[in-house]
Amino acid sequence: MVDGTLHLNAFLMGVGHHEAAWRHPRTDPTAADDVAHFQNLARIAERGTFDSVFLADGVQIFGDVRHSLAGRFEPLTLLTALATVTEHIGLIATASTGFSEPNNLARLFASLDHISRGRAGWNIVTTAGDRAAQNFNRDVNTEHAERYRRADEFLDVTTALWDSWEDDALLVDKESGVYADDARVHEINHRGRFFAVRGPLNSVRSPQGRPLLVQAGSSEDGKAFAARWAEAVFTAQQTHEEAIAFYADLKRRVVHSGRSAEQVKVLPGVVPVLGGTEAQARRLAGELDELIVPTRALRQLTEMIGVDLSDHPLDQPLPELPPVAAINGAKSRFELVRDLAVRERLTLRQLLGRLGGGRGHQVLAGTPEQIADHIEHWFTTGAADGFNVMSPLLPSGLEEFVDHVVPLLRKRNLFRTEYTGATLREHYGLPRPASRYAGQSVISSPTARSAMA
Amino acid sequence: MVDGTLHLNAFLMGVGHHEAAWRHPRTDPTAADDVAHFQNLARIAERGTFDSVFLADGVQIFGDVRHSLAGRFEPLTLLTALATVTEHIGLIATASTGFSEPNNLARLFASLDHISRGRAGWNIVTTAGDRAAQNFNRDVNTEHAERYRRADEFLDVTTALWDSWEDDALLVDKESGVYADDARVHEINHRGRFFAVRGPLNSVRSPQGRPLLVQAGSSEDGKAFAARWAEAVFTAQQTHEEAIAFYADLKRRVVHSGRSAEQVKVLPGVVPVLGGTEAQARRLAGELDELIVPTRALRQLTEMIGVDLSDHPLDQPLPELPPVAAINGAKSRFELVRDLAVRERLTLRQLLGRLGGGRGHQVLAGTPEQIADHIEHWFTTGAADGFNVMSPLLPSGLEEFVDHVVPLLRKRNLFRTEYTGATLREHYGLPRPASRYAGQSVISSPTARSAMA
Repeated sequence: MVDGTLHLNAFLMGVGHHEAAWRHPRTDPTAADDVAHFQNLARIAERGTFDSVFLADGVQIFGDVRHSLAGRFEPLTLLTALATVTEHIGLIATASTGFSEPNNLARLFASLDHISRGRAGWNIVTTAGDRAAQNFNRDVNTEHAERYRRADEFLDVTTALWDSWEDDALLVDKESGVYADDARVHEINHRGRFFAVRGPLNSVRSPQGRPLLVQAGSSEDGKAFAARWAEAVFTAQQTHEEAIAFYADLKRRVVHSGRSAEQVKVLPGVVPVLGGTEAQARRLAGELDELIVPTRALRQLTEMIGVDLSDHPLDQPLPELPPVAAINGAKSRFELVRDLAVRERLTLRQLLGRLGGGRGHQVLAGTPEQIADHIEHWFTTGAADGFNVMSPLLPSGLEEFVDHVVPLLRKRNLFRTEYTGATLREHYGLPRPASRYAGQSVISSPTARSAMA
Repeated sequence: MVDGTLHLNAFLMGVGHHEAAWRHPRTDPTAADDVAHFQNLARIAERGTFDSVFLADGVQIFGDVRHSLAGRFEPLTLLTALATVTEHIGLIATASTGFSEPNNLARLFASLDHISRGRAGWNIVTTAGDRAAQNFNRDVNTEHAERYRRADEFLDVTTALWDSWEDDALLVDKESGVYADDARVHEINHRGRFFAVRGPLNSVRSPQGRPLLVQAGSSEDGKAFAARWAEAVFTAQQTHEEAIAFYADLKRRVVHSGRSAEQVKVLPGVVPVLGGTEAQARRLAGELDELIVPTRALRQLTEMIGVDLSDHPLDQPLPELPPVAAINGAKSRFELVRDLAVRERLTLRQLLGRLGGGRGHQVLAGTPEQIADHIEHWFTTGAADGFNVMSPLLPSGLEEFVDHVVPLLRKRNLFRTEYTGATLREHYGLPRPASRYAGQSVISSPTARSAMA
C-alpha cells in the first residue's frame, strides 16, 4: 500500500474463471463468441474504477478440448475492441517472448497504446511446454533459464524500439515540409545472442512511452526477471504468510536491481465467490465444483505442473513428485500445487477441486464484507499492493464485485472513487519512462541522419 | 464485371495518398495521430457502400523520415478499432509472410474475423528490401523467388490452421459437460521446408472460415502466387491496354490453377483528384505536386524500384536501368516506372511528379462525371472488376468520391445501393471455403483424440 491506494485488475476469461463456469445455469456460454460480452465486462470494470482489465493467452490448445470452453480471440485485437468502448481503464495483454519477433510485438503494443491513448500493458510470458514449441518449428521447448535469457534480450530490444522516436521528434511544419527532426529518430542497432535489430520502430513514440510491463512468473528466474523489468506482478499466493514473504522478497530484489520498491506493484490473484450470506457463497462454490469433469481437470493439472498424473488413483494422496529442478514448465506453479497438497494432505480428487476454481489462485467464498476484509487485511499488512480479481462467473461475478465489494473498499478509503489519471501508468502510480535517447542529439548529427539512408 | 456489380475498396493512408498531402491546406496532419480520423474514414466508405477498406503496411521505416508523415498504427489493431464502429464494410490488413510465424498471423486474422463478424481480409505481402530484413536478425533479405516459396508454404499452413476446427465442432452441452466434438478438431501436422506446425489453431473456425485473401504483387512470381491463392488482386496499371492484358493474363492463370475466373477480382488503383470542373481538379493536382520535396521523392523512388538514382541530375532523362532479372525488390513496380519514363520520355524531375500522386497508380484529375466514365469504361471492357480508390487527400477526397462519384455509379446500375451480404466474402461475391477436414471424421477417431493428448 505504498501510494495509498489499492490497485484492482479485472482478469477476464470466457464466462468465468471456474473451469466449469460455462456449465453453470448463471452463464451463457455462447457469450464467449461475442465481442460485446467482453466490451460489457470492460465497461463494468470501468464503472468500478478498476485500474485495468487483463487477458491471459497461450499459443497452443490447452487441456481437454472436449470439455473446455474454446478460444476465439487474440488479446491485442480483443483489447483494441475494448479500447474503443471505454475511456479510462487500462488494457493488459499477455504475449510470449518465446515465439515472436521483438519488432512485431513492439509495433502491436505501440499501436494499442496509440489507439487507447495510453492504456496498454504487456503481461510478459516465456511460454512453457513442448506443445507450444511444436506450433513453431521445434519438437521440444527451450529450457526454463534459457527462455528467460531470451526474454531479457527481447525486452532490451523492445524497450529500445519504443524509445527510438524521441517524444519531441515531430515538428509537422507544413510550410517547410519538415515533418520530423530526423536527429531525434534513432537506429537501435541491437546485436545480441538472440536478436539483431536495426530499427528505428516504424511508429512514433506512444502516449505512455512504453506499455506498462507486467509479469506473472514466480520462479527464481521469473522473480529475477521481474526485478529487472516488471512494473506490476500477478502472482498466485495461497496463504497470508507466503504472500508476505513473496512481497518482501520481490521488493528487495527490485531495490537490489537499482529501482525503488514503489516501482513494482504486487497483485495476488483472488477468486471471489460471492453470496448474500456465507452459506449462499459456499453453496455456489459447491455447485461449481460439482460441475468439474475429472478427466479435464486432470489434464489441466498435468499441463500446469508438467507432471503426468493421469494414471494415479483419484482418491489416493499424491505420489512423490520430482524435485523442482527437474521441472521445465511453470516452476512456481508446480511448487504451489505440491505445497498445497502436502500441507492439507489432499487426495488427487480433492486437489482437482481446490484447483478448479482458480488454477492455484486463492478461492474465497463469502459475503462482500468478508471479501473486503480479506483485501484490506492483505493490503494493509504488506502482502499485496492490490489484487487480480478473477470472478468465477462472468459477467455476474464481476458485477457483484463492482456493486457490493468496491463500495466497501471505497468507504474504507482504500480505493479510488473516480479516475484521477489518464493512462494505465497513472492509475498504477508509475512514472512515464523517458526515451533512453533523449538529450543525446541537441543538433542534427550525421550519424542519426545516416540512420535513415 | 463478372457478377454484375463493381467492387470498390477504399485504400486508407494517413491524410491522403499524395505524398505531400499533409502539407496541403485541406488536411490536418495531426489527424494521423487519431484513431477517430480512421474511424471517420471507415464510416464514410460504409456510407458509400464500399466493399472494404484497406491498410498497407511495412515492417520498417520507409523513405525520408524528415519529410514524411510518420506512422503510428499497425493494421490489424487499427482495423479492429474500425470494426467496432462499422457494421458492414470489409477490413483488409496487409501483413508480411517474410518475418512472422504462420501460427501467430493465423490467430490475429481469425480474431479480427471473429470480432468483425466475418469482415476480415489479408493482403499478403512478402516484403522486399534489406532494411526490412535488418529488423529481423538478417543483414540481407531473401531473394525474390525464395520469398514467394516461403509465402506459398505460409499459406499452406495458415489455411490448414483456419480449417483445423470444423464448422460444426462445437456442441456446448451444459448437461453432459461436452463443449466440443474433439473428433472435429484436427492437428495439421505440417512439416515443410520453412515451417513445422502441429496445430490445431487455438481459435474456433471464424465466420468466414478463412479471411479473404488479397494480393498485390504483379511480377511473374507474384502472378503465379495470386493464381493459386488470391481472391482479390490490387494492381497498378497506367494504361487501359496494359490493364486489359493484365486482367486477361491473371484470369487465365487462375483458370489454369484449377479455379474459376470469377474467384478472383482484379482491382487497379486509381487516385481520383476531384473538382467541380476539370480546371479545378487540375489546379488541385498542381497544388499538390508543387508541395513535393524532391529529396524525399527521390528516396522513395529509390526504395520503390530498388535502384539508387539519388546522384542523377533531376532535369536529365533517366539513365539506362538494369534488367528486371537483376532487381530483388518489387519487380513489377520497377517495370511500370521504367515503362512510364520511357513511353513519355520523362526527366527524373517529371517522373517524380508523376509518381508523387500515387506511387505508380493512375492519377486522374477530373469531374465526378469524368471519373465515373473512366471507371465504367474500364469495368465494362474487361480491364477491371472494380477499383482500389486512393484519395489524394483524406478525409475530403473520400467524402467527395462518396458524395459525387458513387451516386453516378449507382444511377448507371454499376454499383450497389445498399449492402446485400453480411461478410466481406459476400460483398465480393466469393464463396465461404469449406474446411479441408470436413466430413473426414463421422465418428470420433482415436487419431483426432490423440491430437489433444
